Amino acid sequence: MTDARSTPSLIALDWGTTAQRAWLLDHVGQIIAARRPDQGLLAMTADIDPHDARARAHAYESAFWAACGDWLTANPDLPVIACGMVGSAQGWSDAGYLTVPAQPKYRPGSLVPVAHRAGVVHLVPGLRIPSADGIPGNVLRGEETQIVGALEALGDPAGQLTLILPGTHSKWVRIEDGTVTSFATAMSGELFGLLTADGILARTAAEPARDDEAFARGLAAGRSRHGLLTELFGARPLVLDGLLDPASVADYVSGVLIADEVAHLVRGTGPVVLCGGADLSRRYAQAFAAHGVEPTVLAEDVTARGLWQIAFATGLQEAS
Amino acid sequence: MTDARSTPSLIALDWGTTAQRAWLLDHVGQIIAARRPDQGLLAMTADIDPHDARARAHAYESAFWAACGDWLTANPDLPVIACGMVGSAQGWSDAGYLTVPAQPKYRPGSLVPVAHRAGVVHLVPGLRIPSADGIPGNVLRGEETQIVGALEALGDPAGQLTLILPGTHSKWVRIEDGTVTSFATAMSGELFGLLTADGILARTAAEPARDDEAFARGLAAGRSRHGLLTELFGARPLVLDGLLDPASVADYVSGVLIADEVAHLVRGTGPVVLCGGADLSRRYAQAFAAHGVEPTVLAEDVTARGLWQIAFATGLQEAS
Repeated sequence: MTDARSTPSLIALDWGTTAQRAWLLDHVGQIIAARRPDQGLLAMTADIDPHDARARAHAYESAFWAACGDWLTANPDLPVIACGMVGSAQGWSDAGYLTVPAQPKYRPGSLVPVAHRAGVVHLVPGLRIPSADGIPGNVLRGEETQIVGALEALGDPAGQLTLILPGTHSKWVRIEDGTVTSFATAMSGELFGLLTADGILARTAAEPARDDEAFARGLAAGRSRHGLLTELFGARPLVLDGLLDPASVADYVSGVLIADEVAHLVRGTGPVVLCGGADLSRRYAQAFAAHGVEPTVLAEDVTARGLWQIAFATGLQEAS
Repeated sequence: MTDARSTPSLIALDWGTTAQRAWLLDHVGQIIAARRPDQGLLAMTADIDPHDARARAHAYESAFWAACGDWLTANPDLPVIACGMVGSAQGWSDAGYLTVPAQPKYRPGSLVPVAHRAGVVHLVPGLRIPSADGIPGNVLRGEETQIVGALEALGDPAGQLTLILPGTHSKWVRIEDGTVTSFATAMSGELFGLLTADGILARTAAEPARDDEAFARGLAAGRSRHGLLTELFGARPLVLDGLLDPASVADYVSGVLIADEVAHLVRGTGPVVLCGGADLSRRYAQAFAAHGVEPTVLAEDVTARGLWQIAFATGLQEAS
């Protein structure tokens, strides 16, 4: 008799804009194998006419097979689940969105199948708040799976909390008794990338070196009443005046952006849980401290866990 | 006897990061000839080691001569004045800064000469507010000349005013009786460029088409309490929900940015003068209207006028 814990039971994919991750999970959701095939949407579809759905599907199918075809060949009946931008209108197939309030573990029948040469991949829908009366709503895709994984890691807490998923587009997710009731998106991570790659601050900066004090100074500046657009520029006179090392500009800018994000969104959060990489979580926790809020930090990659939970809740992965 | 108005009297250059302009002015500052040689700093110094001051100087000298060597050959004794990033530490020669409060017409001896093969170019220093106690100061270079030109165009007004020079880095300049007492910089224009060239909003957008209503909606969103980082993202759900044309994303983003800038800086401005291109001035005036402020709009290129005024005030150009 083989060890049940090593029996492959689910192939789970997190397939985003810039990267792809693949896991082979056993019947209780433990990771047997993990891969990072480096086939994000942008790289994969760079040479494809975005309006040619057939060429796009072909490219995704090939990339999927390259990433985990050997797992499927060895275990032809394994169910496959995937989350992230692979399910967007520009992805393999549009998995749509569930409208909040929503229970993000989903119900049987809510995953969206897309065919490959030897079966189907089940795509996880995103979550949306519809725009109304000209007021923008909101969308997320991929984070719904992190939300499920985080809630499970937290022991499915009752009551209200705000789960923060820092990243390129940070998500602030309001949860009540396991149901997502609302969420906000802050573009801090994307702006950090744009500002430190190009433009005047990139020209002011040198190769970044970690500088916690510069980050703290940025945090203080980002809470000022002058606004983000003026405080970001402050890095330049500080460098010209010899008061900020060019290698510390990135940390200063990070501080200004995160302080501004937290200052605008902190009101009425209730208990806060941070779920992200250790470095980003530390930065957000420091920004929260200035508002007297001490977040719980969940320093764990919860995506594989979330995919397994969704596969289980939707009946894709049967209880064992 | 020749017409005095057509006698060349000054060569004036506005030499910035991305573009260069050259004027041949007569003895009362009228423009005899204007050129736009398209030799900004970035393009010119792309292949040069930034630490090799001699190679840099050589490149500037060549570009200068290509731009207006024929004017100098025909009139070897013409004084030459230049403003903009050409006088920065990364430029031809560092012209330094005057510390505010400052009278930006400058005094005799305050221009900084740099030699070329047949004489010197006189560089205009920028203005600075020193950083102090870790609080960022501020810097401008090139705008000091626009300030001088604008004040002259306005008839050298007495009392307080705030002069706004919208652009890549918008400057809000506080002026009292012709003296610059303070200024702020907002990076709205740079962020607009970065966000609409790359990132999620660029992928959400189509080739821009003017949409005044989308701009107005962005203005309204940019005054919300949620902050710039979340309101910018709003363009994406609006497009996904079919409530914003992808071709109108740029105007929406422009509205969010300008509204945020104006909302943060409008307090205590006193009378406001907008000096910039017609389109940008119209956008800022619309953002000010929401705060009950009606700016004076100076729809004129004031740089050549400013260079002539500075040349006159510093004795480079003698009274005729």
